[in-house]
Amino acid sequence: MRILVVNVNTTASMTESIAEQARAVAAPGTEIVALTPRFGAESCEGNFESYLAAVAVMDAVQSYPEPFDAVVQAGYGEHGREGLQELLNVPVVDITEAAASTAMFLGHKYSVVTTLDRAVPLIEDRLKLAGLTDRCASVRASGMAVLELEEEPERAVEAIVREAELAVSVDKAEVIVLGCGGMAGLNDKVRERTGVPVVDGVAAAVTIAESLVRMGLSTSKVRTYATPRPKSFTGWPVPANATALIAH
Amino acid sequence: MRILVVNVNTTASMTESIAEQARAVAAPGTEIVALTPRFGAESCEGNFESYLAAVAVMDAVQSYPEPFDAVVQAGYGEHGREGLQELLNVPVVDITEAAASTAMFLGHKYSVVTTLDRAVPLIEDRLKLAGLTDRCASVRASGMAVLELEEEPERAVEAIVREAELAVSVDKAEVIVLGCGGMAGLNDKVRERTGVPVVDGVAAAVTIAESLVRMGLSTSKVRTYATPRPKSFTGWPVPANATALIAH
Amino acid sequence: MRILVVNVNTTASMTESIAEQARAVAAPGTEIVALTPRFGAESCEGNFESYLAAVAVMDAVQSYPEPFDAVVQAGYGEHGREGLQELLNVPVVDITEAAASTAMFLGHKYSVVTTLDRAVPLIEDRLKLAGLTDRCASVRASGMAVLELEEEPERAVEAIVREAELAVSVDKAEVIVLGCGGMAGLNDKVRERTGVPVVDGVAAAVTIAESLVRMGLSTSKVRTYATPRPKSFTGWPVPANATALIAH
Amino acid sequence: MRILVVNVNTTASMTESIAEQARAVAAPGTEIVALTPRFGAESCEGNFESYLAAVAVMDAVQSYPEPFDAVVQAGYGEHGREGLQELLNVPVVDITEAAASTAMFLGHKYSVVTTLDRAVPLIEDRLKLAGLTDRCASVRASGMAVLELEEEPERAVEAIVREAELAVSVDKAEVIVLGCGGMAGLNDKVRERTGVPVVDGVAAAVTIAESLVRMGLSTSKVRTYATPRPKSFTGWPVPANATALIAH
Amino acid sequence: MRILVVNVNTTASMTESIAEQARAVAAPGTEIVALTPRFGAESCEGNFESYLAAVAVMDAVQSYPEPFDAVVQAGYGEHGREGLQELLNVPVVDITEAAASTAMFLGHKYSVVTTLDRAVPLIEDRLKLAGLTDRCASVRASGMAVLELEEEPERAVEAIVREAELAVSVDKAEVIVLGCGGMAGLNDKVRERTGVPVVDGVAAAVTIAESLVRMGLSTSKVRTYATPRPKSFTGWPVPANATALIAH
Amino acid sequence: MRILVVNVNTTASMTESIAEQARAVAAPGTEIVALTPRFGAESCEGNFESYLAAVAVMDAVQSYPEPFDAVVQAGYGEHGREGLQELLNVPVVDITEAAASTAMFLGHKYSVVTTLDRAVPLIEDRLKLAGLTDRCASVRASGMAVLELEEEPERAVEAIVREAELAVSVDKAEVIVLGCGGMAGLNDKVRERTGVPVVDGVAAAVTIAESLVRMGLSTSKVRTYATPRPKSFTGWPVPANATALIAH
Repeated sequence: MRILVVNVNTTASMTESIAEQARAVAAPGTEIVALTPRFGAESCEGNFESYLAAVAVMDAVQSYPEPFDAVVQAGYGEHGREGLQELLNVPVVDITEAAASTAMFLGHKYSVVTTLDRAVPLIEDRLKLAGLTDRCASVRASGMAVLELEEEPERAVEAIVREAELAVSVDKAEVIVLGCGGMAGLNDKVRERTGVPVVDGVAAAVTIAESLVRMGLSTSKVRTYATPRPKSFTGWPVPANATALIAH
Repeated sequence: MRILVVNVNTTASMTESIAEQARAVAAPGTEIVALTPRFGAESCEGNFESYLAAVAVMDAVQSYPEPFDAVVQAGYGEHGREGLQELLNVPVVDITEAAASTAMFLGHKYSVVTTLDRAVPLIEDRLKLAGLTDRCASVRASGMAVLELEEEPERAVEAIVREAELAVSVDKAEVIVLGCGGMAGLNDKVRERTGVPVVDGVAAAVTIAESLVRMGLSTSKVRTYATPRPKSFTGWPVPANATALIAH
Repeated sequence: MRILVVNVNTTASMTESIAEQARAVAAPGTEIVALTPRFGAESCEGNFESYLAAVAVMDAVQSYPEPFDAVVQAGYGEHGREGLQELLNVPVVDITEAAASTAMFLGHKYSVVTTLDRAVPLIEDRLKLAGLTDRCASVRASGMAVLELEEEPERAVEAIVREAELAVSVDKAEVIVLGCGGMAGLNDKVRERTGVPVVDGVAAAVTIAESLVRMGLSTSKVRTYATPRPKSFTGWPVPANATALIAH
Repeated sequence: MRILVVNVNTTASMTESIAEQARAVAAPGTEIVALTPRFGAESCEGNFESYLAAVAVMDAVQSYPEPFDAVVQAGYGEHGREGLQELLNVPVVDITEAAASTAMFLGHKYSVVTTLDRAVPLIEDRLKLAGLTDRCASVRASGMAVLELEEEPERAVEAIVREAELAVSVDKAEVIVLGCGGMAGLNDKVRERTGVPVVDGVAAAVTIAESLVRMGLSTSKVRTYATPRPKSFTGWPVPANATALIAH
Repeated sequence: MRILVVNVNTTASMTESIAEQARAVAAPGTEIVALTPRFGAESCEGNFESYLAAVAVMDAVQSYPEPFDAVVQAGYGEHGREGLQELLNVPVVDITEAAASTAMFLGHKYSVVTTLDRAVPLIEDRLKLAGLTDRCASVRASGMAVLELEEEPERAVEAIVREAELAVSVDKAEVIVLGCGGMAGLNDKVRERTGVPVVDGVAAAVTIAESLVRMGLSTSKVRTYATPRPKSFTGWPVPANATALIAH
Repeated sequence: MRILVVNVNTTASMTESIAEQARAVAAPGTEIVALTPRFGAESCEGNFESYLAAVAVMDAVQSYPEPFDAVVQAGYGEHGREGLQELLNVPVVDITEAAASTAMFLGHKYSVVTTLDRAVPLIEDRLKLAGLTDRCASVRASGMAVLELEEEPERAVEAIVREAELAVSVDKAEVIVLGCGGMAGLNDKVRERTGVPVVDGVAAAVTIAESLVRMGLSTSKVRTYATPRPKSFTGWPVPANATALIAH
C-alpha cells in the first residue's frame, strides 16, 4: 500500500519530519511517499496561506506520477481536504480530523495545542465543519510560530507543555492533540511531561488511511464529493489541461 | 466610493449580470467595478472549483490597480472570504452571508434555493461557519446548473419557484434567498410567484458594504484576520513578489 | 425616505442622542424622526420595564400620524420587535440584531458591552432568539446604569473600555458592540482606546433599514409576522378602537 | 395555599375552564383564584396580542388585593413570565414550560399540538429560551383558532388527535402536550384516542407551583429576576403610582 | 400513594437520610418506602459503580413485594433510569433530572455542586441526555467524597458553599442544585449561606412523582420505554426467572 | 497483539459471526478472542437489556484469564463502554463510535440503519454522548429484530437496503453504518445494492483498536476514566472479591 503524505507548506525539512513520523507508525508493507508543494508559503499560519496550500496540495497530488492508495493532508487546521476528496477515488485523511477522532477514543474531552493564537480560529472552524467540537475542551496557542518549532524544539516542548497543563487543569481536557504538522515527533516528550495521552495527527491519519484501505472503503461519490462535472478551466498554472486534475 | 464586485468563475457574461444587479441597488456616488478572475472554472459547483476560485478572487483583487473601498465576493457558498479579509484593510462582504443576514430581518426562518444538489453541503457549511444556520429552514437545490441559469432563464425561474414554494409550505421558510450569483436579477420574478420576500445576495452585499464604509467600519485586525506575517512564498503564479499580495 | 427611530424609555434627552447618532449616518434624503414613548420607564434595565417598552413602542409608532418607510427600535436587548413586525408593512429593525449582524462582517467573534449585569441575560436571550449567538464571544456589563451614561460620559467610556479590553484579551472578541441605545456616540472613543472596530446599534440599524427600503424588501407576512387576525380588544389605554393599531 | 391562575386573554369563559382544570388537580388545601386581565385581546394568537397580554397579566396580578403564594401564567407560548418573576417574591410558573418539563419525565421526546400555524414559532421561541427544545420532536398546529376550541370542542378533539398521531408516527413523539390554555380539559379525550400520555399545561403548572411552595423555593433574586430598580415611570394605565407594581 | 425511593449505593445510613428528606416534603397520604440495593458499591463515584447501581436499582425495585405508585431513583448523575422506565408501568423520576427541572423554574441559570471532580462528566452526560444543559451554568466539584458527606457534614457545607459562591459569581448561576443524594438535608444551610435558592433532588423528585400520579400520568410505552420484548435471559443473579423483572 | 471482541448478548452464534468479521480485517499478528457474556439477554433491544449487557461485558472481560492489548465492545448503541474504560488500562473501542467515526472520513453525512424502531433512541443517545451526531443524517430502523438477522439474512439485506436507500435519497446520507453487531458481514451486500460506502462497526473498531495499540495510546486516567477508588462492594455475582475487577 502506498500513502501520499502531503505537507501544506514549502519547507522541505518539515516534509521530512512529517515523513519520519508517518513511517514510524506505518504498518509493514505500507510505503510512505512524502510530498512538498511546489508553490505556497514556507509555513501556513492563516487563511490566505491556507487557501494557497489547499490548491498547492491538490497540485502536488495531481502531479505525482505513480498510483497510490490513500492521501494524508498533513497540515493542521488547513483548507482543502474537501477538494481532494472530489478529485480522488482513494481515501483522503486530514490530520486535524484524524487527531481529534483518535483523541475521542481516549478521553472524555480533548484539547488542541497549536502554534500561534491567530491559527486558533482556523482550527476551531475546521473542527466545527468536521462535527468534532462537542468534546473539544479548547484550542490553545503555544505562541510558537511554525518554523520556530524546528529551530527551537526545546522551547517548543516547554511552550506546548505549559498550555497542555492548563488545558488539563483549567479546561478539563483528558487528552492532548498536537495542533501542527510541524510538531510531529514531540508527542512522546509532551506525554512524559503531562501524564496524559498525546495524539500526533500525522500518526493518527496514517493508521486511519491504512485501515480504510484495508477495509476497502473510500470516499462516497454520491453527492458532496462527487467527481467535478466536466467543464472548462482557464489559465490555471498546473497541467496545460486543467481538467486532467479530475481524471485520476 | 468604489466597490469591487468579484465573480468567482471565469464566465464574463455572468460577471456582467452580477454587475448590473449591483449597480441597480448601489447608492448614487457608488462606483461598481466588476471583476472576472483570470483563472479558474467557468462555473463553481463544488469544492475543487471553489478552492480555485478562492485563490483566483484574491488574485483578481490584488491585480486591480486602483484604490477601492470595499470588496464583494459574488459567489454563493464559496471558499475564500477569510483570506481576502487578511489581505485587505477594507471591508469584505460575501454574498452568502449578506443574503442570510438580510433575510433574517424579514422573517422568522429563511431558505436558500441554489443550483445543483451537490452545492447544498457547501452552502450549509459556509452558513455554519458564519453562524447563520439557526434560522435557516433549509437549503434546496433547483437542479439547474450554474450556466443553465443564463441559458434557460425561464426554466430557471420555474425550478426556483417550485423549490421556494416547498421551502415555504414544508420547511416553514418565510423568506427565500437566491443561492447563486448567477441568479442575480431573478428575485422580482420569484417574489411575484411566491408572495414572500426574495433576497438577492449581490444586492444585499453591496448595500452592506456601502453601509460599513459609511460607518467607517472595517475588518478587525487583532486576531483571525490580521495581515499575514512576512514570510517567503514560492512559485505562486501571480505577482513575481507574492508578498505584494499582502501589502494593500 | 422617512425612518422612525423609537426610543424604548421615556427619557427625552436619550431620544435626542439616539436621533443624532441616526442622523450622522443616514444617507442624504433620509429623514430621521425620533420618537419617545408616552408611557413606560425612564430607563429599561430588566424584563418588567422591557415588556412595558414593547407595548409603549407599538403605541408610539401607531400614534405617529404621518407615513413612514421603516422603523428602528432603539433599545438594546428589549422585547417587542416581533409585535411591531406583525402590525406594520414596512421593515422593522432592532438595534440589538442590527449591531450583532454588522459585527459579524468585521471579525470572527464579537462581544457586547452593556450597562448593568442584570441586563446581560436579556441581551443573551434576544440574541439567542435572533440566531446570532454562535459568534458572540460574550456579553459583558460595564456596571453603568442607563441614565449614568448621560450623566457621566467619561466614566462610562472608562468602564466600557475596561470590559471591551477583557472581551478582546480573555473572550477573544475581535469586534465590540455597544449594548445600549444610550451609548450612541461613544463608539469612536471606544475604538480609539481599544483598537478594534466598535459597532453602534443605532447607526447599524439605520443603514440596514435604508438598505431594505432601497431593495424593496419588507417583513414576510406568510406566517410568524402575519397581520393580527381581526378580533375584539378590551380596555387598552391607546386608541379607543384598539384594532386601529393593526391597520397601518 | 393560594395560587393565582391568570388567563392571558379577556375571554372570561376561558378563564373559567382554566380554573376548573386547575382545581381538578390542586391538592386539598390549595385555593385556586382565576383572574381575567382587564385589557388585551379576546384570544392570543401572535406576538402583538402576546405582548399586550404580558403587561395585562402583570396588571391583573398586581391589582389582586389579597396575599397569594404562587402565580400560574395560563397562556401557552406567551411573553411575560420573566417580568412577573421580577415583580414578585413568590414562584411564577408558565404553563408552556410546566407542560414541557412534565412531558420530559414521561417519554424520550414530546410534541406540542397547538392552535394556529402562526402560533407555532412563538411556542418554539419560548421553548428555546426555556432551554426545553432538545427533546421536543415538533410543535404542530391543529388549525383551530383559540376561540373555536370552546365553540367546537368535538372538532377540536378531532383536529388535535390528527396532529398528535402524526407527531407520534412521523416526528417520533412519545408524549403529547396540549399547546393552548383553551385546551384545558381535552387531555383525557386525546389520550384515549392516541394511547400516549397527554399533558395539560395548567394542571402541570399548578402541581409544580404547589411543590415549589411546599419546598419553600421561590425565584432567585440575585440577577435576572432581581426586583426592578427604583425609578420613574410615566403614564402607565395601572395604579397612579406605577412603582407600586414592584413592591409586592 | 406509595413511592419507592431507591438509593444507588449499599450504604444504609445514606438510604435513611434520603428517606428523611423524602418524607419531609411528601404530601400527607404519601408513603415513602426507601430501598437499599442488595449489591453494588458503598458509594457511586464513577461509571463502573454507576452501571452496577443501574442494575442493582432494577433488582431492588423488582424484589419489592408490594404494589407502588412511583419510583424515585435517588442517585445524582447515575445510569439506569431508562431501564426502570421500560420495566415499570408507574412513573420513574431520577433526582438528577428532577432537580435540574425544578431549578429552571427558579432562575435563568443553575449550577450543580457535586462531590468529586471525577463525577462531573457523568452528571454533565446525564443532563445532556435529559436535554437539560442549555441553562446549566456549570457542574462543580466540592472535592468531598460521597461517604465524607456523612462523616464530616460541616466541612461538606463549607466545601459546597465555596463552590456555590463561585458558581454564582463566576458562572452566573442563580440557583444551586445539590449534586449528590448524600447531600439531602444540606439545602437549608447552603441557602442561608449563599442567598440563592438551593434545590435538593430527592425533595424535587418526590413532589414530581406525586404530581404525575395525581395527574394520572405515567411513562409512555409507544417506543423508547416500551416493555422489553419476551426473550430468553441467562444466568442473571436475581430471580430465577429473570423475565419476571419485566412483568410488573 | 491480542484483542478481546466482546459480544453484548448471550447468543454464541452471533459472537461467532462477530469474530469472523473481526478476523477478516485484523492485521497479520493480531489475535482476535471473541467472548460471550455468561449472563444477560439473548439479544439487546432496549435499555433494560443494555444495562445488563454493560455489566455482563465487564464481567466477561474481567473473567478472561490471559493478558490482552485492547477491547472491542461489539454491541451497537449499548451502555457500558465508560465503565470498561475505568476498569482497564488498555484501549476500549465501542463499535457504535468506531463506525460513526470511520463513516465521517468517507462522506459529508452518514446514516445508521439498525434493527427495531425501539433501538433508535438508544443509538441516538450514545452518539450524542460521543459527540458524533453533527454529521449523522438519521438513524433508521429496518424492522428486523436482532435474532431475525441470523435467521433470515436475505430478508435482512432487503430491509436494510430499503432504509439505506431512503437515508441516501431523503436524509442525504452519503455513507451507511450498519447499526447492529449482528449485521457483521452484510456490508458488502448492502454496498453493492446502494452504491455508497457501508461501514461495519466491528471491522472499524478492530482497526482502530489496533492503531491505538500500535501508536502506544490508551485511555486517559486523569479524570473521567480514572481507576475506581478503593471501596467496599457487596454481593456482586462475579468474583468473590469484586474489587478484583478493578485491578487489571
